[in-house]
Amino acid sequence: MSIVGKVRVGMAGGGSGFFGAPHRRAIIMDNTAELTAGALRLDPAESLLTAERLYFKRGYRDAKSMHAIEATLPLDERINYTTVVTPNNSHFPIAQDALNNGFGVLCEKPLTTNLADSQALVASVERTNLPFVSAYTYTGYPMVKLAREMVLNGDIGDVRKVQTWYPQGWLADAKDVWRVDPKIAGPSGCGGDIGTHAYEFIRYVTGLSATEVSAKLTSFVDDRKLDDDFEARAVLSNGAIATISASQVTIGSQNDNGFRIIGKTGTLEWSNTDHQTLKLYRPGKEVQVFRLGVEYNYFPERLKPYLRLPSGHPEGFHEALANHHRDMESMLRGQSHYHYPGVHDGAAGIAFIEACLESNLKGGASIPVAAVENPDYSTYK
Amino acid sequence: MSIVGKVRVGMAGGGSGFFGAPHRRAIIMDNTAELTAGALRLDPAESLLTAERLYFKRGYRDAKSMHAIEATLPLDERINYTTVVTPNNSHFPIAQDALNNGFGVLCEKPLTTNLADSQALVASVERTNLPFVSAYTYTGYPMVKLAREMVLNGDIGDVRKVQTWYPQGWLADAKDVWRVDPKIAGPSGCGGDIGTHAYEFIRYVTGLSATEVSAKLTSFVDDRKLDDDFEARAVLSNGAIATISASQVTIGSQNDNGFRIIGKTGTLEWSNTDHQTLKLYRPGKEVQVFRLGVEYNYFPERLKPYLRLPSGHPEGFHEALANHHRDMESMLRGQSHYHYPGVHDGAAGIAFIEACLESNLKGGASIPVAAVENPDYSTYK
Amino acid sequence: MSIVGKVRVGMAGGGSGFFGAPHRRAIIMDNTAELTAGALRLDPAESLLTAERLYFKRGYRDAKSMHAIEATLPLDERINYTTVVTPNNSHFPIAQDALNNGFGVLCEKPLTTNLADSQALVASVERTNLPFVSAYTYTGYPMVKLAREMVLNGDIGDVRKVQTWYPQGWLADAKDVWRVDPKIAGPSGCGGDIGTHAYEFIRYVTGLSATEVSAKLTSFVDDRKLDDDFEARAVLSNGAIATISASQVTIGSQNDNGFRIIGKTGTLEWSNTDHQTLKLYRPGKEVQVFRLGVEYNYFPERLKPYLRLPSGHPEGFHEALANHHRDMESMLRGQSHYHYPGVHDGAAGIAFIEACLESNLKGGASIPVAAVENPDYSTYK
Amino acid sequence: MSIVGKVRVGMAGGGSGFFGAPHRRAIIMDNTAELTAGALRLDPAESLLTAERLYFKRGYRDAKSMHAIEATLPLDERINYTTVVTPNNSHFPIAQDALNNGFGVLCEKPLTTNLADSQALVASVERTNLPFVSAYTYTGYPMVKLAREMVLNGDIGDVRKVQTWYPQGWLADAKDVWRVDPKIAGPSGCGGDIGTHAYEFIRYVTGLSATEVSAKLTSFVDDRKLDDDFEARAVLSNGAIATISASQVTIGSQNDNGFRIIGKTGTLEWSNTDHQTLKLYRPGKEVQVFRLGVEYNYFPERLKPYLRLPSGHPEGFHEALANHHRDMESMLRGQSHYHYPGVHDGAAGIAFIEACLESNLKGGASIPVAAVENPDYSTYK
Repeated sequence: MSIVGKVRVGMAGGGSGFFGAPHRRAIIMDNTAELTAGALRLDPAESLLTAERLYFKRGYRDAKSMHAIEATLPLDERINYTTVVTPNNSHFPIAQDALNNGFGVLCEKPLTTNLADSQALVASVERTNLPFVSAYTYTGYPMVKLAREMVLNGDIGDVRKVQTWYPQGWLADAKDVWRVDPKIAGPSGCGGDIGTHAYEFIRYVTGLSATEVSAKLTSFVDDRKLDDDFEARAVLSNGAIATISASQVTIGSQNDNGFRIIGKTGTLEWSNTDHQTLKLYRPGKEVQVFRLGVEYNYFPERLKPYLRLPSGHPEGFHEALANHHRDMESMLRGQSHYHYPGVHDGAAGIAFIEACLESNLKGGASIPVAAVENPDYSTYK
Repeated sequence: MSIVGKVRVGMAGGGSGFFGAPHRRAIIMDNTAELTAGALRLDPAESLLTAERLYFKRGYRDAKSMHAIEATLPLDERINYTTVVTPNNSHFPIAQDALNNGFGVLCEKPLTTNLADSQALVASVERTNLPFVSAYTYTGYPMVKLAREMVLNGDIGDVRKVQTWYPQGWLADAKDVWRVDPKIAGPSGCGGDIGTHAYEFIRYVTGLSATEVSAKLTSFVDDRKLDDDFEARAVLSNGAIATISASQVTIGSQNDNGFRIIGKTGTLEWSNTDHQTLKLYRPGKEVQVFRLGVEYNYFPERLKPYLRLPSGHPEGFHEALANHHRDMESMLRGQSHYHYPGVHDGAAGIAFIEACLESNLKGGASIPVAAVENPDYSTYK
Repeated sequence: MSIVGKVRVGMAGGGSGFFGAPHRRAIIMDNTAELTAGALRLDPAESLLTAERLYFKRGYRDAKSMHAIEATLPLDERINYTTVVTPNNSHFPIAQDALNNGFGVLCEKPLTTNLADSQALVASVERTNLPFVSAYTYTGYPMVKLAREMVLNGDIGDVRKVQTWYPQGWLADAKDVWRVDPKIAGPSGCGGDIGTHAYEFIRYVTGLSATEVSAKLTSFVDDRKLDDDFEARAVLSNGAIATISASQVTIGSQNDNGFRIIGKTGTLEWSNTDHQTLKLYRPGKEVQVFRLGVEYNYFPERLKPYLRLPSGHPEGFHEALANHHRDMESMLRGQSHYHYPGVHDGAAGIAFIEACLESNLKGGASIPVAAVENPDYSTYK
Repeated sequence: MSIVGKVRVGMAGGGSGFFGAPHRRAIIMDNTAELTAGALRLDPAESLLTAERLYFKRGYRDAKSMHAIEATLPLDERINYTTVVTPNNSHFPIAQDALNNGFGVLCEKPLTTNLADSQALVASVERTNLPFVSAYTYTGYPMVKLAREMVLNGDIGDVRKVQTWYPQGWLADAKDVWRVDPKIAGPSGCGGDIGTHAYEFIRYVTGLSATEVSAKLTSFVDDRKLDDDFEARAVLSNGAIATISASQVTIGSQNDNGFRIIGKTGTLEWSNTDHQTLKLYRPGKEVQVFRLGVEYNYFPERLKPYLRLPSGHPEGFHEALANHHRDMESMLRGQSHYHYPGVHDGAAGIAFIEACLESNLKGGASIPVAAVENPDYSTYK
């Protein structure tokens, strides 16, 4: 596939709520992609109006129409991929429909509301060979990518233990949002929404996955039907131990997610609260604090495209999200790119959550996790 | 003036070097403005090619042609303002030319290379009444604006002392860049380039200005013709004491600028290294750490438009820069906006530097600073 | 009991290794107690020499002789209490012997190597009514005490979740120390040595205890017989969830222990790495950072004796340890004192570890924890 | 001189106010020195009672008597040195008297209230060859000593610039303390009390001194007779630039003193607010954060005696102060010791303040600083 000019992006959902605007900023940030087609709201009329108001080239009544009609346009006019920013339960049908119509997909997480759907998406991607990115936004940060480089280069030796965390506070009180409605959000609230982010840190940074888990899911807020607290302990594929702690009741917390990777010869730490640094602890040595900045030579060449500014000019969430869209673009243009979370990783998150739900039902018993390998992760090049 | 659709932005310079790309990202970030016209390089042919490559609607051989031709286009097609991202010595002619052709200006700092030129620009702006923003980027951060709110609301009482700092390290060794060439950069290197940023913190956050200064400018790097270290001590318009410390030889430092405002009842601190928080110290009390996030009620309504994300989703330099372009846009659309650094503030920076240069020549003697009032700063509403 | 002049302190162990010197500094720090009697080494001759060299008034061949002979001295000459700084497996006999001879005890943790011995000590203390402090040093920090005040005053509402952690790195490689020898250290290495500290944070700060646990203990270092990694998840007495994470293989870590207490209306955080502050997070509010300093009015009067310096004069580990000896002294002098960890809390740590060991053997199954109430903890006054 | 048993310490002043207790804790901390003789209060009767209450072996009516009588005691009973903790204006006579009676001196700063007195003390020390320490407490921190090692080893290349700071807030309002009374405190308030600390960082860490200064001293608090704000800019003996910023009106600040040393190849930073780390910035490299801990090999052997605890066990102000008393002890016992601030450094502080006072009177004019060399500083071994 060869694209002349800007990449053409479709968007499903994102016309209300918080997350559409960040994706739009991420898509157009580098001025190499455009907002081509949008089906942005549930109500068809609203959907058309919103696309107009937000300067999309073409508005559609819904994602299905968007895909059907775009597929009839000339190859150099139709969208190249669809960004799925709808609530959880429509990720699956929209993503499937996009793939079936020949469009790549950048899909929000959790990928689907059950493992079977995720596996169906994996099969579709393997069949169509279309680019697919799971929007684990935090893996878009350059320092998380640098952590991956260091771990897989052996800089901290064999991984013994991984601790990941994702405390949030905004759902600590009763709130009427779809994220707490099991019909829309799926069977796990906190686990699905943010536990999957924490778990993906393990997969992305170390290339390891959970093989068995023991978990406890709790609902603290009155009348809440889904878990708002999630604690899991896992054994990883190399025998290492991991903890995955997520909480929506850590009142006053923002998105303070992060990880600590403990190897035989060093420990790496990263946190979203200080996302522009990466800390390396080694025995008997000073702490090494790696800072963001395109001029630092500790970033290998293949990470440089994911940094936009010289050091001291803070980047942030929009840039991290833009790095995922950049990966879509690179694949569509046939350009090289770094390791990214794909459909397998979206599916692996669902496999992990399903095992945790079962462990929780069985009083914390140890439960095996269905394997979903991303060959790109485990084979480090 | 009423604009339908996107704001149309011109750019002079920025086709090479670091700063054009951040401005372009800032301009298009919110998808309410477009890159309409560009004269991006010194070489006319390069200029046209670069505009094409960067998806500008129209490319020009140079800024003069851009202004002349755009001025002949229909009102709803021509650019609304010019972003000046050229080296220092061409700020003045390009900005003047833009104003003379009826275009607003967003101009990089230092505004000009001497006070007379700055005063000429002030006169032009007062005559034409066109919007003009001086790109003191760091005043675009929401927490700097919140600091201004708190100081001017009297939250820390009468200001007694202000400390500002801007250490950098990238010029600590010999480098062949225009910033160290007095013909292009003007009579002060470190002072003009980053001392003006530090000084503007005082003006923007407290509404005060220096009335007299004692300064020492030093060149540490061999064969460097301009100061690469700048230390000034000032008396402010209310009798407060201030220090303005800037350095290009703080090797290993990034853009670690910031300020401390010491009032009679409280002290406020902010640093670019942790730009998403603002710290308030009061006697006998816990430290109060204000965090960025659109949901926090300590942001007054009029600051909310300058925040783009919920708390915990880090914003950064691009967003700060975009806030300056947003102010241009708000003025052009006739919408309300917050206090911003205008042409007076660009000029005040030059007045400050000229006084410091004179003090330095006279062995640190106390020298009066020419007053350039921004009525919008001193009259807090 | 009324003591004229300095309190007279005995010490068992501490003549070699690291921990004797800190205890001695803690005992004499405020010049209200003296080093009266010492049985400081395993070898009797060494023991006598060491007492002489370290300026103890009287040296003894071993703890048994010390207790026996001191008990024959006049009341105003004999020691008032014994500080037990020996390896784990001799805590029990020495502490029992001290109590049986009428001496108070300040004992290092873990209290004993099994729950039965701990319960025997509890019985002895209840029988003799002698003062007994378990040296959970970190509860001696003023900010940990302030956290307790705030939680028990209801400042963060009902406790929903507690996270505690204690990563260390110094045992990440093979080391020949008694701490890794099950014959001396007892049945748990990491759990007993530092997991008990982390668990005590829960008890001390919230007044709650674990009622059931699920745990995984791992030995990472080759040929290590005891766990060097310890992960436990607990249900607390009010239904809250807790995690207790301790590790001796977090290579490069120091004593980075700490806790986060999540209530319904606020979250409190403390870490030994920044032990002089306590952070309170509340929804929609700035973060409140409480700082150490005797002049801050947020310290209630009864905590003031545990602060020694005005703010900005860093205190540390010696002062925290001295606060435990201060509690011994206050009890001996019949003076008021704040809540301290006593023999019940030492015993509760052992009960917790034994339940974790059983859970680990049963693949992480949920195991009840034997209750050991400290009436002073649960009844907040 | 050879001392058997504990070093015998006298104390002049310190019976009321804040600073006596920290010195006493520092003296006895390691149990190698004792509180032998005290003249602790201005009132003779109070003085005797206080010595009794605080367990001094011998109490005296005043320092003069103490020195006179102690000088008559046998060599192995009399005090070895006097700790002077009185208000500023009596430092000189008491220190002189101690030296004249053959006793070493550890004296609080500022050394005297004028340079002539300081020079007289220097002469006395040179004549008697008695040990003399100026209690610049912050130079007692191990990380400050490590900074000195690194600078003098050339780890950051030639020093170009030094920034030192000491903001405090406790005198931001009117307070009735001797520190604001020129009859007792001397001619400079803020400068003498804490500006001297900041200045000593330059001398101690770099071995350089100010050769000329430009300064502004301000009194902000109503009716205050002495400066409560102090800003100085200096040229150092190698041509480097320095700023010395001290303030007693930085309301809400604690003792947030610190320094940044900018060399040609690296920058070092240290702050009392995080006194257990030292940060090294080098171009193109990760930041190196050195941590306190006796096991770290980056501490040279001769610094090891100034560390008391393994890493992760926070030390603090008492330990820093104790390091100064340790130097007195080492000299008295004829043992090796590290570089310490002596009488020359106390005198150099006074020379610096006098030059600043003159510069301030002359509107910030550049004034030469009388040289007071400490041969131990400038000749690094």
